Amino acid sequence: MQLNGRSRIGYELGTETDDRFRAVNPATGADLEPDFFGATDVEVKCAADLAGQAFESYSQTSAADRAAFLRAAARNIEQLGETLVERAVSETGLGADRIRSERGRTANQLRMFASLIEDGTWVDARIDLPDPERKPLPKPDVRSMLRPLGPVVVFGASNFPLAFSVAGGDTASALAAGNPVVVKAHNAHPGTAELVANAVLDAARECGMPEGVFSVVFGAGSRVGTALVQHPAIKAGGFTGSRTAGRKLVEVANNRPEPIPFYAEMSSTNPVFVLPGALRERGEQIAAGLHGSFTLGAGQFCTKPGMVFIEAGDATKRFAENVSKLVSGGSSYILLTKTIHSSYESGLQERVRTSEALAQGPAAAAGFGACATVFNTDADSFIGNSELAAELFGPSTVLVSYRTREQLLAIARSLEGQLTATIHATEQDLEDYADLVAVLEQKVGRIVVNGFPTGVEVGHAMVHGGPHPATSDSRTTSVGSRAILRFARPVCYQGFPDAALPPELQDANPLGVWRMIDGKLSREAVERNRVAQKA
Amino acid sequence: MQLNGRSRIGYELGTETDDRFRAVNPATGADLEPDFFGATDVEVKCAADLAGQAFESYSQTSAADRAAFLRAAARNIEQLGETLVERAVSETGLGADRIRSERGRTANQLRMFASLIEDGTWVDARIDLPDPERKPLPKPDVRSMLRPLGPVVVFGASNFPLAFSVAGGDTASALAAGNPVVVKAHNAHPGTAELVANAVLDAARECGMPEGVFSVVFGAGSRVGTALVQHPAIKAGGFTGSRTAGRKLVEVANNRPEPIPFYAEMSSTNPVFVLPGALRERGEQIAAGLHGSFTLGAGQFCTKPGMVFIEAGDATKRFAENVSKLVSGGSSYILLTKTIHSSYESGLQERVRTSEALAQGPAAAAGFGACATVFNTDADSFIGNSELAAELFGPSTVLVSYRTREQLLAIARSLEGQLTATIHATEQDLEDYADLVAVLEQKVGRIVVNGFPTGVEVGHAMVHGGPHPATSDSRTTSVGSRAILRFARPVCYQGFPDAALPPELQDANPLGVWRMIDGKLSREAVERNRVAQKA
Repeated sequence: MQLNGRSRIGYELGTETDDRFRAVNPATGADLEPDFFGATDVEVKCAADLAGQAFESYSQTSAADRAAFLRAAARNIEQLGETLVERAVSETGLGADRIRSERGRTANQLRMFASLIEDGTWVDARIDLPDPERKPLPKPDVRSMLRPLGPVVVFGASNFPLAFSVAGGDTASALAAGNPVVVKAHNAHPGTAELVANAVLDAARECGMPEGVFSVVFGAGSRVGTALVQHPAIKAGGFTGSRTAGRKLVEVANNRPEPIPFYAEMSSTNPVFVLPGALRERGEQIAAGLHGSFTLGAGQFCTKPGMVFIEAGDATKRFAENVSKLVSGGSSYILLTKTIHSSYESGLQERVRTSEALAQGPAAAAGFGACATVFNTDADSFIGNSELAAELFGPSTVLVSYRTREQLLAIARSLEGQLTATIHATEQDLEDYADLVAVLEQKVGRIVVNGFPTGVEVGHAMVHGGPHPATSDSRTTSVGSRAILRFARPVCYQGFPDAALPPELQDANPLGVWRMIDGKLSREAVERNRVAQKA
Repeated sequence: MQLNGRSRIGYELGTETDDRFRAVNPATGADLEPDFFGATDVEVKCAADLAGQAFESYSQTSAADRAAFLRAAARNIEQLGETLVERAVSETGLGADRIRSERGRTANQLRMFASLIEDGTWVDARIDLPDPERKPLPKPDVRSMLRPLGPVVVFGASNFPLAFSVAGGDTASALAAGNPVVVKAHNAHPGTAELVANAVLDAARECGMPEGVFSVVFGAGSRVGTALVQHPAIKAGGFTGSRTAGRKLVEVANNRPEPIPFYAEMSSTNPVFVLPGALRERGEQIAAGLHGSFTLGAGQFCTKPGMVFIEAGDATKRFAENVSKLVSGGSSYILLTKTIHSSYESGLQERVRTSEALAQGPAAAAGFGACATVFNTDADSFIGNSELAAELFGPSTVLVSYRTREQLLAIARSLEGQLTATIHATEQDLEDYADLVAVLEQKVGRIVVNGFPTGVEVGHAMVHGGPHPATSDSRTTSVGSRAILRFARPVCYQGFPDAALPPELQDANPLGVWRMIDGKLSREAVERNRVAQKA
């Protein structure tokens, strides 16, 4: 397949501009053909305007039509076959198996949101029936449900070239809810972005979706992304990336004349607590799992466990030795981009000042190669050096030994907001440390017991979110079906005749969704004159 | 009952400080005894710190215990009897009947949230069952539910001395979700605030709630409120008031090292569209309803209909005459505060420059008296003078005649975000103007057909919210049971043994809540080993 490097503005191609850039192969450091062209200011404006125009009709499409669109996009992405895999591997340095599995996840996410909107219950339909006999005033008929927010800007993420990029979770959930999407493609994998953009746009055309329902713009630097967040037609944003970039975009969103919600998933160090009983029972197994988790995907997951708290003692020494052995005898790693590579290298340099490098893995031959590294320190040093609690993107973690229960709780209380916390514990440990669990509940979006935080399940119950600075909005998740709630708001219809209501709120419940009728969940039809009839 | 004018810091009284102020009787302009004392900086900090400490235990209380606390608070407020009514009347100029009815609403809100948490389904419990046999990796057990955000600061509102103040909707929903509350009492009704604070604190003590679960601080100006929003223990805020004050507090919340959600309900002009069929059929009735609605509570409701769009013609002339007659022959009004009074007076002065004052009602003898006023203008003038679309708090509205359907749609598209829009229409009108309804759906939180926006029903389906600048967060409502969602966030529990889970997520479903099990709603127990058993 031939790439042309041009933005997709609605159903049209963008122009070839002077703002050129290329992808780089992280395994070699070499440029990849062809040139990609940053969208002009006019093209960016046009993409947002088209999205605004498309919203009036797209927001009124049936859930069935939107589901068909999402399913067609999933199928088209799968049909890109090895062309997509090869390009994504060459742009990211990730293995072909990982890319194939991420492609599967991406298609499944699109289909999960298709099923969710076909089911229809997600809209939280509520009906408070009228009572014309009520004194002193009659009670009106009040109904409400979630409706789409408006056009959404989505920023592709470097570490998920498919599942969190052009047709990733943010795009899928925004489109499912009834919002047009403008994607700012990530500069690190523009060819992957172009291939997926074509697949989604073909699906939109096939399904008769209005022009502007989906656009993808390229652009190195922050100009294009900032302009999109500032455009008045845009009503929300989704982002996964660094804390610096995320906070800047949130600020732009807050400083608009009409501020908009901007969902930034920013950074997390994902503490692991290895409690005494579990350490005694299966320390070796936990060490192996930890090594697998912090080196998975070259340690470039938002949920990478970056700090491990463990009671000082002989068992902990053995634990540290086990992890060290796995690191020394492990693989070399390739990082995604030059920036991530140099941050990782300088982060390692920084870290040896405050903690001991216990072991380092082999170096990669070329490109953005990185060595896995495990550090060791104690609780006092950890508390005194806040940079040890900061995210270091790449295959590294730090073991922190504590001496007392109070020290452990003090550390937990001092933590910033996190996506996850992990506890390795026996049932007895969990009882003994119930107060630790209560503290962590306030700090994180997801608590994992006796597992590892990487490998986020895409389901209905998943929460991939957490208090600031893990994300900009702790009330939300960017993974799982709850993610659709980010792009919707309740709208209330009072005194409407049945024919003017959305189908989810009509008396007969033609879509068969679950609704809250006078406070109780039901799939039954309602009779709006029931009170009058009783009287 | 003796008032002492001191803040309530947990279960202790604040000090008598030099920062004194008094309530004013709007009907006379005279000061009311006693002095009230602004909380010191240390007292404000102490209230927030106590709330932070209380959160660890209060967030772990059972829903049944919190419900008992809310019911006790409702009962104690009712038992304040005429003492409360007299003080509230003297501080607000509102009638005794209105205050009694607002007291009823306040108690009912507390009881509605008590019932909601007793029912328990609001927590959106979700369970994705495990599958140990899944390839290539076993599927973990993933469960999630809404948990409280943390201590909430609530700002009392001038126009609802009970239902949106110390124990109003924000307080009730925040406490119900499991969050301690610190109230910044409104300076216009501090005596009312003190009485209600005592009622809530007595309930907290009776029910064994931790100290700090509820505090009320006084303070003229913005010092006390700003300090509360900035305090690190505070995790969310609720506010109803002016756009200027609301935006300032949102900015403070956004600029914290850890930004927090701040729900500000700010301003709304609540457009009314009288469509041609309805005007012909029942213009006189609509005129009477409109007059009742924009003068209700002296026009000091957030949902007051402040602009009315109506097709130019003879029927519209008659409509304007009918409204004018009702205004001229109507009552005089007392406004809540000196500030509201002077804003209303200067707003009227401003408005006569761009529109015609059709009629004015009688003037009040003393105090903060105000005349009801109806203005008239045409669509061109309305579009050219944006101040006509701004909220003017008080008993006034503007009739805007348009000539074409396109003009009407252009006006609708140009509107800022609103709490409500109202359409008077026959069923034929609604069909003919379906595009108007689609535009309004994007602009407002609630669309009312053939009714009036004032008199907001407190129920499950109500939405009292809307796009900026009506509120700071269009995804939320401050009235109705959905308001509780503002003060909660999803937390995920992966791989937890049953005993360590909150009861809502335990296998046996001991609280009998509705849960989403693998994507389907159910009240059944779950068997987590079901897959293993099948195999």
